[in-house]
Order: sequence, then structure tokens, then C-alpha cells
Amino acid sequence: MSVEKGLLIVLSGPSGVGKGTVRKAIFDHPNTNFKYSISMTTRDARFGEADGVDYFFKTKEEFEALIEQDKFIEYAQYVGNYYGTPVDYVKETIDNGNDIFLEIEVQGAKQVREKFPDALFIFLSPPGLKALHDRLIKRGTDSDEVINRRISKAKDELKLMNLYDYVVVNEDVDEARRRIQCIVEAEHMRRDRVENKLRQILEVF
Amino acid sequence: MSVEKGLLIVLSGPSGVGKGTVRKAIFDHPNTNFKYSISMTTRDARFGEADGVDYFFKTKEEFEALIEQDKFIEYAQYVGNYYGTPVDYVKETIDNGNDIFLEIEVQGAKQVREKFPDALFIFLSPPGLKALHDRLIKRGTDSDEVINRRISKAKDELKLMNLYDYVVVNEDVDEARRRIQCIVEAEHMRRDRVENKLRQILEVF
Repeated sequence: MSVEKGLLIVLSGPSGVGKGTVRKAIFDHPNTNFKYSISMTTRDARFGEADGVDYFFKTKEEFEALIEQDKFIEYAQYVGNYYGTPVDYVKETIDNGNDIFLEIEVQGAKQVREKFPDALFIFLSPPGLKALHDRLIKRGTDSDEVINRRISKAKDELKLMNLYDYVVVNEDVDEARRRIQCIVEAEHMRRDRVENKLRQILEVF
Repeated sequence: MSVEKGLLIVLSGPSGVGKGTVRKAIFDHPNTNFKYSISMTTRDARFGEADGVDYFFKTKEEFEALIEQDKFIEYAQYVGNYYGTPVDYVKETIDNGNDIFLEIEVQGAKQVREKFPDALFIFLSPPGLKALHDRLIKRGTDSDEVINRRISKAKDELKLMNLYDYVVVNEDVDEARRRIQCIVEAEHMRRDRVENKLRQILEVF
């Protein structure tokens, strides 16, 4: 019998909503048994971020060469930088029956949906735009001008929610982590995914 | 803003798979915040079952009078007895925005699907037909002839799995309980169910 394919899990949401923090909470948790697809970016590493762990940090020239070679599932330009998902590791992982997790910018989701229509799209939403604004101020890594641009962008990005299968409101990181794990678990119990198992059950007796 | 409707959660599966035990585990659990729709039946109460708790026990004549009055969402005859779900309490509960849980026989699911296409259908499956057979023997409430009839029925019922949204394999009662709660929780995060919430989020700022 052929191996059942793994799930491609896509987590996205407006900039500043806390995607990176939630993703870290997921991968720090012992119940997580999916792989993480590290994104590639041309933006500078923030304090505490490491190359090959949080992102693959590349120059603009390196990134554009990979675009030319069609090596991305999705890529986007965002506030002057490139962000993208290398394709090879993702394909290999799901073909081997393992789940893989992407954390991407909202703009990229549409490209992933076209290439992987069966992927599981989870939108991480702020409790409200006011909360998002406060969080960006508190993070202190952006100027007022950048924050205003991000908020305006977030309004547009929230409207893209309708491309997603699920919406998780990020009020508490650990609660968001738990909810995402629950969605993935439920998705594995969808009847159309367990038909192989059904065949086994009927054969036993 | 109108109240969002509650979910109609339908748990079913072959006779003897442990639907009643799993249902009890769900309603004994502190995290469960949905209502239970008590079924009506003409079969005799088993040891430990109480009228108005496990079932409403009715005579054949009483049951047939209610069928005449169109008072069931679904009903079925199974091994010589009627089983059915009274309609009024279910409608009232979901209209008030609360989730309601039905535990029904497999034959009834199709009727519920026709009347409530948005309901959530969960199929409780035995790990295998061999395990189901052993469980029925161990329960000791049925004769060999009844057990053989039930197993043969279960084979047919397993083929009805394709009417369901999710399949939960009942290897461990508490694990099955947890999985069902997870499915319900995930279902509440489906994007099409949270669009009212989205509107609120966009209005805040």
C-alpha cells in the first residue's frame, strides 16, 4: 500500500500578529511531530535570530537567482524585502508521509493554494487592530512610519482571510499553539484522509 | 447582530463500538460545554440505564404516535426496536447558539444530513471487526445469535462511513473523548463560521 501523504500546514496572518512566536511555541512543544520548513529572506536578522534556524538569510542577488531557477513554492516582496519558501524540502517531506509546517506572509498563501490545493490554511488573527498596533509599539523594532505602514497593510491582509480554512485568534500564545495542534489533529481524522485505514478495518475479520 | 447558530454534532458508529461509553466520557468531562439530546427508544433499559438520562424509554405505540406527529429528526428500527431523536429540543438549542450532541444509530445519520446539512458527522469506528466482536462477547448482554447479527450489521454499517465528515477510531475511551472535543473545537475555528468575528476585528480600530 502506498504511503499516505503528509499534510502541508500553512500558518499566516498580518505582520506583527505573532506568527513567529506561535510557531516557536509549536515547535518547542513535545506533542509536535511535524517538520518545519525554514523560509528564506533578504531582510536583516533580528536580535536572537539565527541563519538556518529562524530563516535562511540571503542577499537579494542570491534570492533572485533562486527565483530564476523556480526553486520557490511561493515568494513575496514585503516592506522592501523578499520572503520565500524553498520547494524541495516541502515536497520530499509530504511525499514521505510526514506533515510539514510553513509560516509565511499573507501574500504567499495564494501561490501555495494554487500549487497545493489540499494544504491546510490557518490564519492567525489579532484580537483586534488596536491590539496589533499596541504589540508593534511594544516590540520596539520598527519606526512609527513602519508601524503605520504595517497597520494599513494588516487591514488589507485581514481581508485576505477568506482564502483560509481556519482562523485562530491570537490572544494567548500557548492557547493559539494548542488550537493549531487541535486543528491539525482534527484534519487527520477527516473521513477522506482515513479511507486507507477503513480498508484495513474491514479486512481484519 | 444575530446570534451565530450552534453546531449539531452527530456521533454514530456500528452497534457495540462504544458510542454510549464515549458519550458518557464526553459529558463527564469539565471542558464539555454542549448539550446532549437524549434519544428515544422502545428497547428495554440495560442494567444501569435510567429513563430521561440515557434514553427516553417508550412503548412501541407511544413511539409510533410521535412518528405520526412528525416529532423526530430521525428514527430507525434496529434489531426489532425503534430509536429516534426528538426534534424540538435540538432546534431550540442550536437556534440559541449552543452546540448540541446526538448519539444515534448509523441508519439515522442520512436523515439528519438531509434536514441539517451543516451538522458535524463523526463516525466512531472499532479498531477492527475482530475487536468489535470481542467487545460484544465481553459485554455479555447479547446471545451468540444476536452478536453474529450485530457483526454482520457492523460490516454493512462500516460501509456507511462515507456519509461522515470525521472518523475517530475507538481504541481508548478517554482518547476518543479528547479527539471528539478537538474536532468540535476545530470546527468552531473554520473560517466560514467566524466571519462575524472578522467583522468585529476590522471595526475596532
